Amino acid sequence: MSSIYETDVIIIGAGPVGLFAVFECGMVKLNCHVIDALSDIGGQCSALYPEKPIYDIPAWPTITGGELIEKLEEQAAPFKPTYHLGQSAIGLEKKDDGKWRVTTSKGTVIDAHAIIIAAGAGAFGPKRPPLEGIEDFEEKSVFYMVREREKFRGKRIVIAGGGDSAVDWALSLSELAEHVMVVHRRPKFRAAPDSVEKMKQLEEAGKIEMVIPYQLAGLEGTDGVLSKVIVKTLDGDEKTLEADTLLPFFGLATDLGPIAEWGLNLTRNTIETVPSTCATSTPGIYAIGDVADYEKKLKLILCGFSEAALAAHDIYHYIHPEVALHFEYSTTKGTPGASS
Amino acid sequence: MSSIYETDVIIIGAGPVGLFAVFECGMVKLNCHVIDALSDIGGQCSALYPEKPIYDIPAWPTITGGELIEKLEEQAAPFKPTYHLGQSAIGLEKKDDGKWRVTTSKGTVIDAHAIIIAAGAGAFGPKRPPLEGIEDFEEKSVFYMVREREKFRGKRIVIAGGGDSAVDWALSLSELAEHVMVVHRRPKFRAAPDSVEKMKQLEEAGKIEMVIPYQLAGLEGTDGVLSKVIVKTLDGDEKTLEADTLLPFFGLATDLGPIAEWGLNLTRNTIETVPSTCATSTPGIYAIGDVADYEKKLKLILCGFSEAALAAHDIYHYIHPEVALHFEYSTTKGTPGASS
Repeated sequence: MSSIYETDVIIIGAGPVGLFAVFECGMVKLNCHVIDALSDIGGQCSALYPEKPIYDIPAWPTITGGELIEKLEEQAAPFKPTYHLGQSAIGLEKKDDGKWRVTTSKGTVIDAHAIIIAAGAGAFGPKRPPLEGIEDFEEKSVFYMVREREKFRGKRIVIAGGGDSAVDWALSLSELAEHVMVVHRRPKFRAAPDSVEKMKQLEEAGKIEMVIPYQLAGLEGTDGVLSKVIVKTLDGDEKTLEADTLLPFFGLATDLGPIAEWGLNLTRNTIETVPSTCATSTPGIYAIGDVADYEKKLKLILCGFSEAALAAHDIYHYIHPEVALHFEYSTTKGTPGASS
Repeated sequence: MSSIYETDVIIIGAGPVGLFAVFECGMVKLNCHVIDALSDIGGQCSALYPEKPIYDIPAWPTITGGELIEKLEEQAAPFKPTYHLGQSAIGLEKKDDGKWRVTTSKGTVIDAHAIIIAAGAGAFGPKRPPLEGIEDFEEKSVFYMVREREKFRGKRIVIAGGGDSAVDWALSLSELAEHVMVVHRRPKFRAAPDSVEKMKQLEEAGKIEMVIPYQLAGLEGTDGVLSKVIVKTLDGDEKTLEADTLLPFFGLATDLGPIAEWGLNLTRNTIETVPSTCATSTPGIYAIGDVADYEKKLKLILCGFSEAALAAHDIYHYIHPEVALHFEYSTTKGTPGASS
């Protein structure tokens, strides 16, 4: 069994609000471990708009997403947070001693008095088409991104989608695939006109087959090896495409993932909280930033900063009785009910 | 009659939170006029700690009070706020058209749809000793600060207080006054030990008279010209000091002033608000920052920033029906209920 980390607060999400929560917890002498599904801190600021200027961070007339994260990391650093990146929070368990135990997708186990969920819109992932049994084909015949183009040489490929990714990869893979089919629900593509024009020329040259207006309807194959992709029109006309590879390009979706199963009060992808403490319906679990909801909530980073402060202070009061009890038995520091 | 200003929102207080409210109102297309009792923007940040580093402004690992105000002014500037400085908000009146009219101590009159009170702890002023009729002597024989030392040459001066101001001015004025008496309720002074030591040497040399343990109890004189200062011990022993000048140095106090009479729900010096909108009990009047109170409120500048955003958005919805009604009659822009 791997070692178990012990800390005061587990923060789920290393975006701007999660990072500032490290600082605010530090200010009330609470240590933090931070979990994020991405391999870097910063959340959407780093992943989606590192170069984009933001205008509504107080006292920053303009700051890029990247700079914002840099500053917040620097501000949190004196409190020595431990980051667990490239892994999502999966398991939640209430221990007999009243602490929470969180387990991540990489098997990291952390025990803490309290949890702050600062998960934004959730972890990023590709939008998965709702096809029965698609999981069995993933990473064998179904891929949501092209990591290595050469892998697709000689393949019969179905590309699904109408955006830039679908069009660009259709052009690129048509150079080495045996056959490329583009499935789209309508004739219009949301992609660079030049590229769409090129794709049509390749269609006329017989290099690309356009399957329009069709949508993905089913998969056939054995042991994760695809043999057929079924497509349908809105009217129900069905067609079977002989293919060994499917590339669905429907963009990114965000997903709370297993957190949605933690028994918190959820409204769509957000967690209901008390506005002035950010407490959820479960004692010891807090939600701040875009993932937190209350009446008249504004999804602004600057409001998330304030929520981080409110949560940290409420957690201090939540944890304190236990700490005081502990002190009674093992040290002479502090007295029950004393505040720092 | 002087001209009347018209605006969307009157912000009372040009401290950090008031300044950021200008920005947040601007983001939802509301114009602002800002009133402050001080002659400069920045509130306590500029007046009390322009050089002091602040550590908990998000994404500013450290920033001085002065820099913070500079940045916030720059951020608000594109929305062209009008500042009315060196004057306090005095009069409040609900007009027949539903707007609020605020009158300042300098006679400035401003009409607006909504008011944001960002008055912090209130306007600054010296702590005035509770002596009957002291107002009549102020600025003639009673002064709360020394603007021009030379004015006190040849005077018989009573200095009251036990802090640095009392001690430092006792030392300084003993060089040119006819007589200096220091009234303090106990032998211990909260002042630089060096200065206290010097004061004791001057006492031994007969240059300063220590009146300890006494407190101010009364004033005598005619037409604002002081002749006697009455002092008392806690036991009721009374003593009369022949003096033509009194300098009470009891520090600064803050005071909401006439705003306290505006019919808002007050608890001590704070105004009760709804946490997620910052609305007060009076529709159209909002309170943010340190002056605003709700359960679990944290008096942090960064929370005030968030409150500024919440108030601005709620004011937008509060004002909007009227704007839409106006549009119906006079322009074709916008439709009732449309949001920007």
